[in-house]
Amino acid sequence: MQRTYRLVISCPDQVGIVSSVSTLIAEFGGWITEASQFADAGSGWFFMRYEVDAGSLPFGLEDLRRAFAPIAERFGMSWHIADSEAPKRVILMASKEAHCLSDLLYRWRSGDLPFVIPCVISNHDDLRDFVEWHGIKYIHIPVPREDKSEAFQRVRETVAEHAADAVVLARYMQILPPDLCDAYPARIINIHHSFLPSFVGARPYHQASARGVKLIGATCHYVTSELDAGPIIEQDVIRVNHHNSASDMVRLGRDVEKTVLARGLRYHLEDRVMVHANKTIVFA
Amino acid sequence: MQRTYRLVISCPDQVGIVSSVSTLIAEFGGWITEASQFADAGSGWFFMRYEVDAGSLPFGLEDLRRAFAPIAERFGMSWHIADSEAPKRVILMASKEAHCLSDLLYRWRSGDLPFVIPCVISNHDDLRDFVEWHGIKYIHIPVPREDKSEAFQRVRETVAEHAADAVVLARYMQILPPDLCDAYPARIINIHHSFLPSFVGARPYHQASARGVKLIGATCHYVTSELDAGPIIEQDVIRVNHHNSASDMVRLGRDVEKTVLARGLRYHLEDRVMVHANKTIVFA
Amino acid sequence: MQRTYRLVISCPDQVGIVSSVSTLIAEFGGWITEASQFADAGSGWFFMRYEVDAGSLPFGLEDLRRAFAPIAERFGMSWHIADSEAPKRVILMASKEAHCLSDLLYRWRSGDLPFVIPCVISNHDDLRDFVEWHGIKYIHIPVPREDKSEAFQRVRETVAEHAADAVVLARYMQILPPDLCDAYPARIINIHHSFLPSFVGARPYHQASARGVKLIGATCHYVTSELDAGPIIEQDVIRVNHHNSASDMVRLGRDVEKTVLARGLRYHLEDRVMVHANKTIVFA
Amino acid sequence: MQRTYRLVISCPDQVGIVSSVSTLIAEFGGWITEASQFADAGSGWFFMRYEVDAGSLPFGLEDLRRAFAPIAERFGMSWHIADSEAPKRVILMASKEAHCLSDLLYRWRSGDLPFVIPCVISNHDDLRDFVEWHGIKYIHIPVPREDKSEAFQRVRETVAEHAADAVVLARYMQILPPDLCDAYPARIINIHHSFLPSFVGARPYHQASARGVKLIGATCHYVTSELDAGPIIEQDVIRVNHHNSASDMVRLGRDVEKTVLARGLRYHLEDRVMVHANKTIVFA
Repeated sequence: MQRTYRLVISCPDQVGIVSSVSTLIAEFGGWITEASQFADAGSGWFFMRYEVDAGSLPFGLEDLRRAFAPIAERFGMSWHIADSEAPKRVILMASKEAHCLSDLLYRWRSGDLPFVIPCVISNHDDLRDFVEWHGIKYIHIPVPREDKSEAFQRVRETVAEHAADAVVLARYMQILPPDLCDAYPARIINIHHSFLPSFVGARPYHQASARGVKLIGATCHYVTSELDAGPIIEQDVIRVNHHNSASDMVRLGRDVEKTVLARGLRYHLEDRVMVHANKTIVFA
Repeated sequence: MQRTYRLVISCPDQVGIVSSVSTLIAEFGGWITEASQFADAGSGWFFMRYEVDAGSLPFGLEDLRRAFAPIAERFGMSWHIADSEAPKRVILMASKEAHCLSDLLYRWRSGDLPFVIPCVISNHDDLRDFVEWHGIKYIHIPVPREDKSEAFQRVRETVAEHAADAVVLARYMQILPPDLCDAYPARIINIHHSFLPSFVGARPYHQASARGVKLIGATCHYVTSELDAGPIIEQDVIRVNHHNSASDMVRLGRDVEKTVLARGLRYHLEDRVMVHANKTIVFA
Repeated sequence: MQRTYRLVISCPDQVGIVSSVSTLIAEFGGWITEASQFADAGSGWFFMRYEVDAGSLPFGLEDLRRAFAPIAERFGMSWHIADSEAPKRVILMASKEAHCLSDLLYRWRSGDLPFVIPCVISNHDDLRDFVEWHGIKYIHIPVPREDKSEAFQRVRETVAEHAADAVVLARYMQILPPDLCDAYPARIINIHHSFLPSFVGARPYHQASARGVKLIGATCHYVTSELDAGPIIEQDVIRVNHHNSASDMVRLGRDVEKTVLARGLRYHLEDRVMVHANKTIVFA
Repeated sequence: MQRTYRLVISCPDQVGIVSSVSTLIAEFGGWITEASQFADAGSGWFFMRYEVDAGSLPFGLEDLRRAFAPIAERFGMSWHIADSEAPKRVILMASKEAHCLSDLLYRWRSGDLPFVIPCVISNHDDLRDFVEWHGIKYIHIPVPREDKSEAFQRVRETVAEHAADAVVLARYMQILPPDLCDAYPARIINIHHSFLPSFVGARPYHQASARGVKLIGATCHYVTSELDAGPIIEQDVIRVNHHNSASDMVRLGRDVEKTVLARGLRYHLEDRVMVHANKTIVFA
């Protein structure tokens, strides 16, 4: 894989943004390998993402940042530049169900998804052996029903201590406290086992079965302090029928959950997701 | 198309139902062309649908009904037998948007869907020419905002007078009064322009756009007195992204709406849908 | 809908293209409402499409073309600029089956698809009434089995005479002669009733049924002189199973055909499709 | 899970089959939990599958077989009865790519798919550690390019020695010799990485990329001596576009491959697949 720098920008839309950015890149001989833009007429906001061949530039990442800063200031941009060879550090959190975790670990060890896993955190000890076989640290933080505050304090410290860029709730069956959610905006990724906003909260397949829907789904979203209401990154569905009981749906849904989570995580890892007004722009 | 009798049954599940029914059919030399069964372990209820080649039986529909009645009584069945050559009479109701109506009229005139349209009812006069070109009666019943009761009284009388077996709300933008809904259980079919139970009520695409979902859908369901909460017959979705405004979704959604409505109506016309506890069994 | 100019470009990739184009637009105060780019690393070719708000420019289409020409020359571009308010002239060709034609005529009369239909050409007379009800000229050109050359000469003349920008084969069941195909590269659009390249040629659903596939599909593609081998614009599939005979597939497939054709045609009408090396770039 | 006996039948269609079978079951008080039938009007063949609650019968599997034999003989049936608590023995074969193998091993260890894995056979040694961590025997049988006959002789012996009910080619990159295929009709399951019959043979994603298709897929099928031409059990597709290179398709396709293989294998393990005239009936 070619090394690239990913320039991700959002700002109020106006004439001249693309011209300024692309001209800067061109002046240094930068080769753009992928370019995405979106002008949101509704909000008047502009979003763009460039991938520039690192080898085509006469300097490194820091110089590019320095060169870019004046343009960013001029247009009032939120922006960052990521290096495709600096994989993000992502802590995985799980409970007892292994389908999402197992799928992500396969993608990690095969290189299908490029990321670093500083550790796996779980409120149960069931998945330890499998995780440790991968040479990954397994941290068991039980979450007692009576008082969860200490547990989540440990979670918070663990995330901080491991310098995680992101946290993935890979069917972690506890609700994170609001202050923890707020501390990592657009950096905690959850997979919810329904097609949100249908069936918020617990036991969504049982809700789906009771309602008699003909499709069930899964939703990958950023976590916010409001339960299951954060910006949606990716969704998908599969067909069910009257033969499928709620427990069949649980089983069938697992395949959608793991696929949707992996797609959403990939977008995040590749800096393809931007959040604006509780919605995402995904340059897939 | 071969003429068939469609035997549709539901009753509490017990040993011997299929044996009794299939043996009766076999004794008369009846040739079963399609058979579907479903034993719902949750509710303890049993559902079945047989299609029997009419020509293989030594008698007609009435004799078959007579022959079957004792079995039905023995097992406490809800049941009916429909003749594939007696197409249902279906009144279409629409407002101004023509995509569903236009699609259904194509299916009617091409024979794609076998049904009789006694009339089209609309609260506007816009679609008259197109409907009348088909040789179908167009009944304009305006629904004044201030007092709708008289209008719906006329709708009720029109439905009764035309001996309709079913009513299809093909993007009819008025909410039917509860007593009218209750008068035709599992016989009024609506197409809702969202993936229910997400986005009940008005302007679902705008709700979807505001929530930032990545798939939008449509739901074909039987109408009950509770808004958008009746038994779901069929659903489908299509993918959207940040480029799609609410009005794009309106446009994109039309294709799903008309396809989902046509599929749901086909199931109904072919006696493939059974309702139990606000859910459908669809022998598709 | 806002009036826009659509600038569509392809050329060998090199540094500076986007910079030059976007800077030109910006210098005139042009407001870019939609921008898509694609650098094909395999072929070394670059493709882009800009939509510019016509009202934001100080001049009209011809001036824009004149201003752009030097850049186009410098980079060796193939290019054109289309006006969103100059709808394309599209001749529809059909035979006896009306599902695609009926769907396109609905989209035409409702404004769902913005295009002009100078006439409908058919090798049968069956669909005349329906077409003429729309106020559209219907030209019946029978194609005798023994000698088709005269018929296709008339087709060619009719297309020329009506100054058609494009021709849509809406289930037109004759194979156009190679010279006619070659005369309108990337301007004749066909809907093939299979998921190409599976089941090229006649009776694809029967081929699909014989092979026992679990999904059937439709393919919208530009016509070239090689049968069913032109650049693919759009495809989709639906699920079938053992219950579905070849004639069921014919029926089920119609819904996919008309939807896929309408999507493909929309991309074409909006200047979203570019062809390179028998493949399409679709800026959907 | 309730223990059931699965009665799977195919025979020439005639009046009285269902009556005879269901009456036999009913006479012994057998509780049918799931019933599927299919009368293929084209071939005149009849297929059925019953699941009977084992606990509802007054005797065991052997007695049921004995009781059923006279009916089977009378109607000329091919038939078998499987015990849901006697999981099939399935040998997995793989090469270097682990996505399908990894997914199946997850399903095995989590109980998602009920089967026994006597061993994994591979022509490479790469996946040994991961397989052995599961406590499953790993048999490395290299297949030299010059002479493969000895290797496949060892494969054949290994399959026989481990009394395998089925063999799954989980991206095993060698073509099995015809005599081995013929020795296990409808018992060797392959996942092909294209939407067959498109792109038979090697490097299907590169073929797909060259053809410019808009959907890529995977096909789970029984292996026959004709390459990639055996009865199709399950297929699915995902959308691609011009941004996706052949190597992107390889990556994207993996998710479809593993999902389709798992679905196909489930149908096989649950005795839901019947083969007739190189096509499958899948009572999904």
